[in-house]
Amino acid sequence: MYRTHTCGELRLEHKGNQTTLAGWVQTVRKFGAITFVDLRDRYGITQLLFGEAHTKQLDENPLGREFVLQATGIVNERSNKNPNLPTGDIEIIVSEFNILNKSAVPPFTIQDDTDGGDDLRMKYRYLDLRRNAVKKNLELRYAVNRAARNYLHTQGFMDIETPFLIKSTPEGARDFVVPSRMNGGQFYALPQSPQTFKQLLMVSGYDRYYQVVKCFRDEDLRADRQPEFTQIDCEMAFVEQEDILNMFEGMVKHIFKEVKNIDYTEAVPRMTWEDAMWQYGNDKPDIRFDMKLLNLKKPATVYTEKKDDAALINGADFKVFDEVETVLAISVPGCSEYSRKQTDELTEWVKRPQIGMKGLVFIKVNTDGSYKSSVDKFYSEEKLKAIAEAAHAQPGDLILILAGAEERTRKAISELRLEMAERLGLRKKDEYKLVWILDFPLFEYDEEGNRWVARHHPFTSPKPSQIETMIGNNPVIENAAEYLKHPYANIKANAYDMVLNGNEIGGGSIRIYQRELQEKMFAALGMNKEEQLHKFGFLLGAFEYGAPPHGGIAFGFDRLCAILGGSESIRDFIAFPKNNAGRDVMLDAPSTIDEKQLNELQIKLDLKN
Amino acid sequence: MYRTHTCGELRLEHKGNQTTLAGWVQTVRKFGAITFVDLRDRYGITQLLFGEAHTKQLDENPLGREFVLQATGIVNERSNKNPNLPTGDIEIIVSEFNILNKSAVPPFTIQDDTDGGDDLRMKYRYLDLRRNAVKKNLELRYAVNRAARNYLHTQGFMDIETPFLIKSTPEGARDFVVPSRMNGGQFYALPQSPQTFKQLLMVSGYDRYYQVVKCFRDEDLRADRQPEFTQIDCEMAFVEQEDILNMFEGMVKHIFKEVKNIDYTEAVPRMTWEDAMWQYGNDKPDIRFDMKLLNLKKPATVYTEKKDDAALINGADFKVFDEVETVLAISVPGCSEYSRKQTDELTEWVKRPQIGMKGLVFIKVNTDGSYKSSVDKFYSEEKLKAIAEAAHAQPGDLILILAGAEERTRKAISELRLEMAERLGLRKKDEYKLVWILDFPLFEYDEEGNRWVARHHPFTSPKPSQIETMIGNNPVIENAAEYLKHPYANIKANAYDMVLNGNEIGGGSIRIYQRELQEKMFAALGMNKEEQLHKFGFLLGAFEYGAPPHGGIAFGFDRLCAILGGSESIRDFIAFPKNNAGRDVMLDAPSTIDEKQLNELQIKLDLKN
Repeated sequence: MYRTHTCGELRLEHKGNQTTLAGWVQTVRKFGAITFVDLRDRYGITQLLFGEAHTKQLDENPLGREFVLQATGIVNERSNKNPNLPTGDIEIIVSEFNILNKSAVPPFTIQDDTDGGDDLRMKYRYLDLRRNAVKKNLELRYAVNRAARNYLHTQGFMDIETPFLIKSTPEGARDFVVPSRMNGGQFYALPQSPQTFKQLLMVSGYDRYYQVVKCFRDEDLRADRQPEFTQIDCEMAFVEQEDILNMFEGMVKHIFKEVKNIDYTEAVPRMTWEDAMWQYGNDKPDIRFDMKLLNLKKPATVYTEKKDDAALINGADFKVFDEVETVLAISVPGCSEYSRKQTDELTEWVKRPQIGMKGLVFIKVNTDGSYKSSVDKFYSEEKLKAIAEAAHAQPGDLILILAGAEERTRKAISELRLEMAERLGLRKKDEYKLVWILDFPLFEYDEEGNRWVARHHPFTSPKPSQIETMIGNNPVIENAAEYLKHPYANIKANAYDMVLNGNEIGGGSIRIYQRELQEKMFAALGMNKEEQLHKFGFLLGAFEYGAPPHGGIAFGFDRLCAILGGSESIRDFIAFPKNNAGRDVMLDAPSTIDEKQLNELQIKLDLKN
Repeated sequence: MYRTHTCGELRLEHKGNQTTLAGWVQTVRKFGAITFVDLRDRYGITQLLFGEAHTKQLDENPLGREFVLQATGIVNERSNKNPNLPTGDIEIIVSEFNILNKSAVPPFTIQDDTDGGDDLRMKYRYLDLRRNAVKKNLELRYAVNRAARNYLHTQGFMDIETPFLIKSTPEGARDFVVPSRMNGGQFYALPQSPQTFKQLLMVSGYDRYYQVVKCFRDEDLRADRQPEFTQIDCEMAFVEQEDILNMFEGMVKHIFKEVKNIDYTEAVPRMTWEDAMWQYGNDKPDIRFDMKLLNLKKPATVYTEKKDDAALINGADFKVFDEVETVLAISVPGCSEYSRKQTDELTEWVKRPQIGMKGLVFIKVNTDGSYKSSVDKFYSEEKLKAIAEAAHAQPGDLILILAGAEERTRKAISELRLEMAERLGLRKKDEYKLVWILDFPLFEYDEEGNRWVARHHPFTSPKPSQIETMIGNNPVIENAAEYLKHPYANIKANAYDMVLNGNEIGGGSIRIYQRELQEKMFAALGMNKEEQLHKFGFLLGAFEYGAPPHGGIAFGFDRLCAILGGSESIRDFIAFPKNNAGRDVMLDAPSTIDEKQLNELQIKLDLKN
């Protein structure tokens, strides 16, 4: 036994007891003949006191940072207590010690505010993981894992493992593939999710399934994407959308309680996809703050059930507004006194290529009741007032208006909304606001192939009332220019996303469970019968033998942990993450393999450059 | 909401209540105007009664086996109760019903004793999974998972996920590899175990780690091996072997209690590897029964601390015994009256190629005190009696003796011991006997390379007392013929296996945590410095920065579940297993992939035939 206690355990009540600790040397402080050492382990830090008897030994074999030390001694009350440490009332008067292992000087300090840069910390991830900040993240991750599992267990869900070596059925993202040595020329694929397996489990009658499971996508990595990531993956049979929303609202609230001690008692609001896009320009709106969009103008083809406020801007001969598809405004609270320099800076901000706007129109709703805008030439104060009223602007607010093509402009105003909220401190880290987004379009249009693609995935069911529309119509788009008039364009999905503070943390759907409907879906995606059978024959087959109605959801576990940990970066919540080039710089992987391995797998390199 | 209750829930106390159930049609029985349907779901079976009002509807749309049905009605007390069903006291008088989905006639019956063969059941695994027998296995698997997690959590262990896309470092088994599209010509490997990662986590101070995790080995599949399998993987820092044995003995006992309601209170016996081989001919002895080996003869080079009983057989001029390396005996209880036919059959049994013996010698210890053997010509009754006494034979026992080369003979007598126990019903399914096997040799000799290979793995530490032997000697074997005289041949490992009923269910070791010792180990395995750094530079690096003493264990989760479920086959305990050719016959995977995928990965097929 290397220790009797941990470094986070001893208190005044242990005074006089003999103890043995083991851990890492955090600091060494010498005062004449006395040496203080802070000894650290996973549980805390305890001060060791080495007296005169050890001076010679310590001089000959000095202790360095990160040395692994075992020390035995008596718990003593400290004269100089440290109220910031749970163990700060005591110290150990060391009688005996033993250097278990030495350490070279670490390439960066093992502290919350380390001096190590990102690359260095990734290379020496095993040292980075020693830092308290990273440890707290992994502890939080484990707490979320436990809370989710315990909730799901209580609700009768079963953890059932699904396979990792499966069949490649590239739809959407690319598969990682694994050459099979025993079946030359053939490949397994790593799962992008256990989607079809969890559906088969429903067909098999397992009724409530969950898994905390690794998934794999061979995408070009954007910032903060990982080629392997973890999902809390769930599926239920004999349920409607309402059952699922309630069940998983419960799960997330349970996690809040267990992990953050937050009583999230209010009901999670529900918003249609169309409302989210209309009001926030975004299907994952951050509703911690208001600042909703004023839709001043939109093309007739989109959001067909919504009415814009074009009357407020029309007839002013302002070409910019007259010639664009879409004009959108937000009212930013308390910013009416922005200087010319500040509005210019905002204009530059929206003109950056990432946002891609041509300019920015503003209206200052001054506290004295007057209005000042960058379009005074075109709009009378009365008209400005009408716009301000429609935007629910208060005196002192600054109205920002973007104009351009529908899709880009909506995205831009959403970005601007988030940016302004960030600047105003409205995106509070310790405030959590959930919202369900519902009624997504079932399909998106793929221009290149002049066909439909599944917005969620090909297993998502249309709204029950629209199944007939789907079955009864030919999915082929005869006239590409008028694809929006195809009956499929208006089909809504029985799909739902859970959004937390502007991040999608989970998404799912009620699934198709009828073979005919599933075949129609595959056909809409451009798959002929043969392809359907080759790729998904097992699923179509399963639907022949009594598939129950079912649906599910998957939570992005890495992202959920990051948000609960108050961070933007999922990498900080993964023990051994990869960098943006998909490399593990600590392992130096991927790497070349032996010719012998290639031979056995019956493949050859075929490098393009 | 599709149902108010499950099919396993209703009792007499619900009599008169209205209920809605949903599930699968197990059976349909018609009696005149009345139709009885057994409705099945995950939770049980409930009898539905359809009265005259439904006759027409049922005649027009008959219910078939595995139809998915929703039915509403009143809970009624059955006149003809079924005491074998928890719901057997009641039935539902159906007022309304709804066929949620039809089913084709399943290719085999969904019953405990199905008429489906192995291949058919694997192809339609989603139907096989509906069978109660398979469902019970997956439920047991989940219970073991929960019990292990809960125990480890209580003991302060943290579940920390380790990566799946890692570096290929082929040692022992082959890696599955994954071509990297973003790093042309380079490959990831799938982990054979998270070994190095869990050690790094110890270096990082996480001190108690666990994971229930998939591992991958590209081996030629023997019966009952899977290319992907699951481990309960654990590691602890600041521990000695004793700490680990106690901790995981506790875990397995907890699992017994939670899953089987067995109070396994007695201490798990400990046996050295040498004793196990000496007494049972096997390093995973089944100790549910005795029948220990009598070592009548062994070569001087092995089990050097043990003394054989050669005096009992020497000097009889029996060439067979005189000319072989090894002679081993077991005493089989109560079989002295075996007929000639029976002993002949046993002789044939040991001569089969799988066993590979040339013959079988037997001694009947008759109940009347006389002895009868197949070697009466060479051994007097007195000598036979001496052998019988050494074998602890009782009157009525049958002593079986095998002779031949050491390794093969020891293996053969172990097989024979298990076979006889099986025949005698001594391997009881509901009896569980654990044993720790300790002090394995650290190295095995690799004839082909004239070098050492790690018996457990290259990270296993020698016994503390033998570290000096390892550091102080050159691992190179100068004289292949006398490799047993090399100081490394006698080094024992700080390694341990947990054996349950003759199966290894877990194995682990105290790890090397000193760079110098780890380098020496790699060198012994024939790795030069460059290779060491290329493959394991990160680990050697980590050992520079204060690695603590640590050790761990991994349990074969699939196997553990199979044994607790009373089965020989792990496949029955995996939701979607692969067959012996590594194929998923349901998915038809592995399969060919698109030319486009190969192109993107910059690889080509290179088929050898």
